[in-house]
Amino acid sequence: MGLLVKGGEVVTASARYTADVYAENETITRIDKNIDASQLPPGTEVIDASGKYVFPGFIDPHTHIYLPFMGTYAKDSYTSGSKAAILGGTTTFIDFCIPGKSEQPLAAFETWNKQSEGSSACDYTYHLAVTRYDEEVEAQTREIVGKGVGSFKIFLAYKGAFGIDDGELYNTLKLAKQLGVITTAHCENETLVTEMSQRLFDEGKVEPEWHYHSRPPLVEAEGTNHLMTFAEVHDAHVYVVHLSCEEALANARRAKHRGVNAWVETLIQFLLLDMTYAERDGFEAAKFVMSPPLRDKRNQDVLWAGVKHGLISTVATDHAPFDYGDQKPMGKDDFRKIPNGIPALEERVKLLYSEGVAKGRLDLHRFVDSASTQAAKIFGLFPRKGTIQLGADADLVIWDPKRQTTISQKQQTMNVDYSAFEGWKVTGYPEVVTVRGAVAARDGKFVGTVGRGRFLQREPTHF
Amino acid sequence: MGLLVKGGEVVTASARYTADVYAENETITRIDKNIDASQLPPGTEVIDASGKYVFPGFIDPHTHIYLPFMGTYAKDSYTSGSKAAILGGTTTFIDFCIPGKSEQPLAAFETWNKQSEGSSACDYTYHLAVTRYDEEVEAQTREIVGKGVGSFKIFLAYKGAFGIDDGELYNTLKLAKQLGVITTAHCENETLVTEMSQRLFDEGKVEPEWHYHSRPPLVEAEGTNHLMTFAEVHDAHVYVVHLSCEEALANARRAKHRGVNAWVETLIQFLLLDMTYAERDGFEAAKFVMSPPLRDKRNQDVLWAGVKHGLISTVATDHAPFDYGDQKPMGKDDFRKIPNGIPALEERVKLLYSEGVAKGRLDLHRFVDSASTQAAKIFGLFPRKGTIQLGADADLVIWDPKRQTTISQKQQTMNVDYSAFEGWKVTGYPEVVTVRGAVAARDGKFVGTVGRGRFLQREPTHF
Amino acid sequence: MGLLVKGGEVVTASARYTADVYAENETITRIDKNIDASQLPPGTEVIDASGKYVFPGFIDPHTHIYLPFMGTYAKDSYTSGSKAAILGGTTTFIDFCIPGKSEQPLAAFETWNKQSEGSSACDYTYHLAVTRYDEEVEAQTREIVGKGVGSFKIFLAYKGAFGIDDGELYNTLKLAKQLGVITTAHCENETLVTEMSQRLFDEGKVEPEWHYHSRPPLVEAEGTNHLMTFAEVHDAHVYVVHLSCEEALANARRAKHRGVNAWVETLIQFLLLDMTYAERDGFEAAKFVMSPPLRDKRNQDVLWAGVKHGLISTVATDHAPFDYGDQKPMGKDDFRKIPNGIPALEERVKLLYSEGVAKGRLDLHRFVDSASTQAAKIFGLFPRKGTIQLGADADLVIWDPKRQTTISQKQQTMNVDYSAFEGWKVTGYPEVVTVRGAVAARDGKFVGTVGRGRFLQREPTHF
Amino acid sequence: MGLLVKGGEVVTASARYTADVYAENETITRIDKNIDASQLPPGTEVIDASGKYVFPGFIDPHTHIYLPFMGTYAKDSYTSGSKAAILGGTTTFIDFCIPGKSEQPLAAFETWNKQSEGSSACDYTYHLAVTRYDEEVEAQTREIVGKGVGSFKIFLAYKGAFGIDDGELYNTLKLAKQLGVITTAHCENETLVTEMSQRLFDEGKVEPEWHYHSRPPLVEAEGTNHLMTFAEVHDAHVYVVHLSCEEALANARRAKHRGVNAWVETLIQFLLLDMTYAERDGFEAAKFVMSPPLRDKRNQDVLWAGVKHGLISTVATDHAPFDYGDQKPMGKDDFRKIPNGIPALEERVKLLYSEGVAKGRLDLHRFVDSASTQAAKIFGLFPRKGTIQLGADADLVIWDPKRQTTISQKQQTMNVDYSAFEGWKVTGYPEVVTVRGAVAARDGKFVGTVGRGRFLQREPTHF
Repeated sequence: MGLLVKGGEVVTASARYTADVYAENETITRIDKNIDASQLPPGTEVIDASGKYVFPGFIDPHTHIYLPFMGTYAKDSYTSGSKAAILGGTTTFIDFCIPGKSEQPLAAFETWNKQSEGSSACDYTYHLAVTRYDEEVEAQTREIVGKGVGSFKIFLAYKGAFGIDDGELYNTLKLAKQLGVITTAHCENETLVTEMSQRLFDEGKVEPEWHYHSRPPLVEAEGTNHLMTFAEVHDAHVYVVHLSCEEALANARRAKHRGVNAWVETLIQFLLLDMTYAERDGFEAAKFVMSPPLRDKRNQDVLWAGVKHGLISTVATDHAPFDYGDQKPMGKDDFRKIPNGIPALEERVKLLYSEGVAKGRLDLHRFVDSASTQAAKIFGLFPRKGTIQLGADADLVIWDPKRQTTISQKQQTMNVDYSAFEGWKVTGYPEVVTVRGAVAARDGKFVGTVGRGRFLQREPTHF
Repeated sequence: MGLLVKGGEVVTASARYTADVYAENETITRIDKNIDASQLPPGTEVIDASGKYVFPGFIDPHTHIYLPFMGTYAKDSYTSGSKAAILGGTTTFIDFCIPGKSEQPLAAFETWNKQSEGSSACDYTYHLAVTRYDEEVEAQTREIVGKGVGSFKIFLAYKGAFGIDDGELYNTLKLAKQLGVITTAHCENETLVTEMSQRLFDEGKVEPEWHYHSRPPLVEAEGTNHLMTFAEVHDAHVYVVHLSCEEALANARRAKHRGVNAWVETLIQFLLLDMTYAERDGFEAAKFVMSPPLRDKRNQDVLWAGVKHGLISTVATDHAPFDYGDQKPMGKDDFRKIPNGIPALEERVKLLYSEGVAKGRLDLHRFVDSASTQAAKIFGLFPRKGTIQLGADADLVIWDPKRQTTISQKQQTMNVDYSAFEGWKVTGYPEVVTVRGAVAARDGKFVGTVGRGRFLQREPTHF
Repeated sequence: MGLLVKGGEVVTASARYTADVYAENETITRIDKNIDASQLPPGTEVIDASGKYVFPGFIDPHTHIYLPFMGTYAKDSYTSGSKAAILGGTTTFIDFCIPGKSEQPLAAFETWNKQSEGSSACDYTYHLAVTRYDEEVEAQTREIVGKGVGSFKIFLAYKGAFGIDDGELYNTLKLAKQLGVITTAHCENETLVTEMSQRLFDEGKVEPEWHYHSRPPLVEAEGTNHLMTFAEVHDAHVYVVHLSCEEALANARRAKHRGVNAWVETLIQFLLLDMTYAERDGFEAAKFVMSPPLRDKRNQDVLWAGVKHGLISTVATDHAPFDYGDQKPMGKDDFRKIPNGIPALEERVKLLYSEGVAKGRLDLHRFVDSASTQAAKIFGLFPRKGTIQLGADADLVIWDPKRQTTISQKQQTMNVDYSAFEGWKVTGYPEVVTVRGAVAARDGKFVGTVGRGRFLQREPTHF
Repeated sequence: MGLLVKGGEVVTASARYTADVYAENETITRIDKNIDASQLPPGTEVIDASGKYVFPGFIDPHTHIYLPFMGTYAKDSYTSGSKAAILGGTTTFIDFCIPGKSEQPLAAFETWNKQSEGSSACDYTYHLAVTRYDEEVEAQTREIVGKGVGSFKIFLAYKGAFGIDDGELYNTLKLAKQLGVITTAHCENETLVTEMSQRLFDEGKVEPEWHYHSRPPLVEAEGTNHLMTFAEVHDAHVYVVHLSCEEALANARRAKHRGVNAWVETLIQFLLLDMTYAERDGFEAAKFVMSPPLRDKRNQDVLWAGVKHGLISTVATDHAPFDYGDQKPMGKDDFRKIPNGIPALEERVKLLYSEGVAKGRLDLHRFVDSASTQAAKIFGLFPRKGTIQLGADADLVIWDPKRQTTISQKQQTMNVDYSAFEGWKVTGYPEVVTVRGAVAARDGKFVGTVGRGRFLQREPTHF
């Protein structure tokens, strides 16, 4: 069944024009000035996009949908998560397949596949976490790359859980270089975090606001510099996830300047929320506990400048929803046990448009680029995803630039009992969202098909 | 008369797909999978692009076609220059309208228009140089902006000629901010250059190789930092032309990091040639005398990394051809009198593709971006120029990625008696180049129409 | 008449020991374990220093005693200023001889000599300001250097008053290099200050708190980088006066790192006061108006670290007293007309000891070094001044490390109607201060001799 | 028996004067203008120092006299090493007591004491290496600190041998902070060195010149940044040993700028030799194999500037002599097995004076400071060592500033079969060297007493 989007202003990272976009068999097959709907096959769905932007579907390169973590599970399923994504204009997300420290990668891959297969309403893929390195892991990792997982994830943090040591880091990057795979990395020095957390705990500093102090900027700056050095040795391609502060960015910047193949991601929350949220009275602060933590406000200008100039390539969410009612309280008496993360998958695009484009911090093209195109290019999804062109998947977002809404947990689809952006007023709205040629959201309602989302196989591109 | 480019792989900064591109009335009106040529109006020119890339026409944001300078004139006319541009795949160039120190801007504008009108085979526009600042200049400058000149040029160098002082700099950027105009700047401290040149001359160091020593990297670094500071005060948008070295780039980088609205341009010669060229025996060195000068080889890696990561937005030429036989020798006994500049307009795109894409330093999209799209976006030409989309000007380059040629003055169209890249072997070739829907170059021969090129009016976009 | 200081702990930048110090004919002639007072010439004054430190007399390398400025005069005379200095432990100060823009340097030199000769109770010298550069100035400047003035001062600020342009800067540093003279410099970009001040004024922002906004950190950072570049060209030796902020220090630091012969001075007020003082209600803020202005508090840690590690060589005052009652109000309706400066000559050493040594920020030796020795070394006074050794001038400070006092205008000797440090409690006190072997202050009372202070002739040492 | 040094020019870090220096019972007891030798006790040795400098004995804060390493032993004994030191003007050295990975610290301390007691002709002390961290180590380390060892050494390099991991690093610095002890650190990332060495070896790159490539600057820069981060967390005081390159210095510099309590040491060889020495033909290169390795020549200017401005506090040797004839060849077929190190203890001071002071790179006071005073201050030996004052140990160097000699293995006392500085001509010579009041070297001949040197107990000073 066909889809015709009429009269919208198509905006990609490097194009802007008014045209009709027609899709058949999930793919964009025509882009033309005036496509006569009456000549199209019967049953073609026609959407009037006049006065609207038509964006490529947005991509969140960093989400945790299925996530066993800190003794519990992130609340979303691929069903609830993908619905929320779509309602927010995100039509592709990249989750993380994370083997336990002693688990076989292939077993983890199966576990994740079981969770995702038949459950998602939009397309998705995984970064494969390398959480230890030995011959078996290497062999299975190669096999999984062969199955279409073109990116790794490593943790320099989370000692004893997912974290790897320097030898494993060296070997993982060596393998990644060999395979042409990019390695995404959580850059916080694990020893410092563990020791500083323990010190705070021993001093009776157990409330959520101490979380920040267990991992100040220097911890992230060190981790970032560490990664850059190891990447440089192998000429490996690396991607710093959830960069939060000037100190870490300065180290990434210096590395890029000297030629390291590094990309940087920040999160929508680091652009908009500051550490005062994580210092709120009572246990409220726990809603905002994540790692790296929310930072001092002064960092926001630096991060916005980074996104604007392309020093920061992507804006993601690190979506990791845990209920405030019964999960966050696991750390009531010990901030170390608060499940880390906030929900943001549903709101990222609206917030970035509203605070970025509408407030003049980002131009329209860089907005699309940072929220969609760059993720597609970096992670081997381009040009199938991340742009509007002949042959691309018909993931489209019909965007009303003027519509104003207010974010609230009450209206959200993410399966979690709070919103980190409660009460924020935003300008710009994804009126219609299509997934491979089929309308999946319309006017804030999910009208898609659970199970239609596919696992995206990706070829390595980082040679 | 229509134009149909069939079966090529369309590559823009953020798209890549195989399609037919059809243009009518100068503009791209259809992009489709299989456009049936037999259904098109008779006389439609059909070009087979299978196995080829189809790029948007390239843009050189920094050329000097008409240039009275140092007592002589750059050798190209709009006719010879535009032909050379087209033969190299460049379909738009931005020249500089430079009033003399005591000349009225409007008079200069007329002078340039007289040179360009009816002479160019491809489209062009000017940056308007502000070479002094007073009420009359301000009024006329506003008028010229109103006529479609959306960018300024200032010289922190060339004392007594085009250079402006700090008060003029302050006021020019203030006006630019007010008008939404971006200011391009030549960043070398003029006093240091003048004094150091004089000192060298007084010491009997008069040969061309001393030119470098009259303007070492610290002179450019200082100029760059100076511009950044003044831009920051006004939140003005600035563009550093012909950045040549790590020291200057570091200052621009720090400024961008703290939020200054700055863009950086480098030149193809700074990526490929080093100062040993300007130290060649005899007067041969004079061929390579330009300002800033060619630098130590170590800078090239830094510049390539800068282009790759987008820290440097554009790769231009500063095309300024002066004959080796009878113009460069004006400075036979005094390097200060050697007309500055090299010819490069014709070879920029081939060299950037060959040394960049073919050698793995740049990906295909960033190549298009840095050689075309960014210039269009920054200078208010986008999306008319700089991309391939419905409604864009049909400036297309059908590119054979495998064809190998050797650069030589003997084959060049630029009106100058030497090539700065004599003997360089390059991979990649602009087989067919179209200007607004009409084929202007085919297989290395100019087949276009002199006088068809238009002056491009640009709206200010830098608010 | 002799002087014997018995039993104190002698502390210099690089020595610490208990000994008796004996001076005869103004000079230290013996340092020994137990000098038998009964063997000394009759009339020898004996001071018991047991339990006290014996420091070399402190040096303030940046004061304005005689200063016609902004239509008025700084309030101290060489008599009142030198008394205040001595009472605070400072036994040498370096003033500024500043020719008017059209004045002959020799005439200014005479003017200053007339003011100082016979009036000072302690030794002093001048930095010679170069406020324009031409042949006459050069000739007279050489002559003045020959008379023992071994340092220059230049202003990159104060347009139209003392400020010099780039050509003059180039030539001044060239001459300085030739003569082996160090050039001290006020580093704020004059155009930016002038223009931004005017802009604020035009906007009706006329109160003292707007002074800060007329010269934010970027203005000083630019000036500092500018100086460094010009110094590097000549390999000239330069000294940045009154550096106030991280941005400027970063530029000086980078320059030192690459080998520029640069020294940095900060002021006691920049270590201790922040911009909130200059934002006080009513006109009170005017007391704290100086250039560069007091900065955001975050800069203080950076400056203290700089002093500790020697990146900043000296801590001075830029002493410039103007009455709050009838001088500061000249700028009641225009912050630009508020005479710039604060009084600090009398309190610098106590404050630096109390906030530095007593609070653990500085060790004892670095305290002496930054408040005395470095100034002596940099400005050609060493080892006559700045240390305790045989043959050095017997300028000694007997320091009670435990005595606590409170700073107040009521007790001050500086001739000005307010104190910038009113109410500050300080630990450490100069119980006895000697000038060339004669007691000049005892227990907070001036007991010295007006007119005994001499002009210190200095040889150039900066080759 | 007394010692009188007559008529020399005493030069310390902050004093310079002509005087007679008299010592009795090992200590300086008088410094006076004209000490009448006839009034002194009979037997007083009188040395004519007129026309000479009198420096405090120099201190080498980094030597390896007793060193079981890489399957062999450094060639010097405390006897040969101390003689060589004295002949070169060094009267105190700091060795390293390095427990094996599984050895008890107290046992190692005994081993070192057995080697040193009664063997040295000059004073010495140790840095205590912390090579693992557990309760036993902590307890014994506290005990050894109680016995007067006021500084630690840690290795971020030498995996499996002395190297510690991040947890041990954290705990060592925590203990150091608690005890007021400074921690010296070898900053090279151990994993990178190990892996890169193995990679080179596996590629058949086994010759000495490959040593450099196993530890390029980024390895040292990473280690330095790593240390700075951990130090900052504890506010611990750290000292980077043998810093060799700009990249590492930049990281230390940034850390100092933000307030980290860090000091930096470089080596005389890094100031004077470059990597071409370690690339010499045949096995000759092995003479110059050390870690970090000799670097590209461009680093030398940066290091000299660092020493001049005090960014680098000390110039040491890392003296580690291994015979070229039969020890270096252990790595004939595997550069990893070449015993690391060069002999330099005997020549450091002459080279630093000749290349530093005589060539105008350092002033006389900074020379004394970097080669003596700073080491004394940082390592708790001041003011007993490192200066000339009443009560200080009478370690004096009578220095002929004009005498020229040529360095050669044939004349050296160090017990090793080559000189790293063979054939270097140097200006400046330690004519007479005294150890605690007794002449130990005269005119190039050792005339001291083996066994007279004492272990220097040091109190922690780094709180």
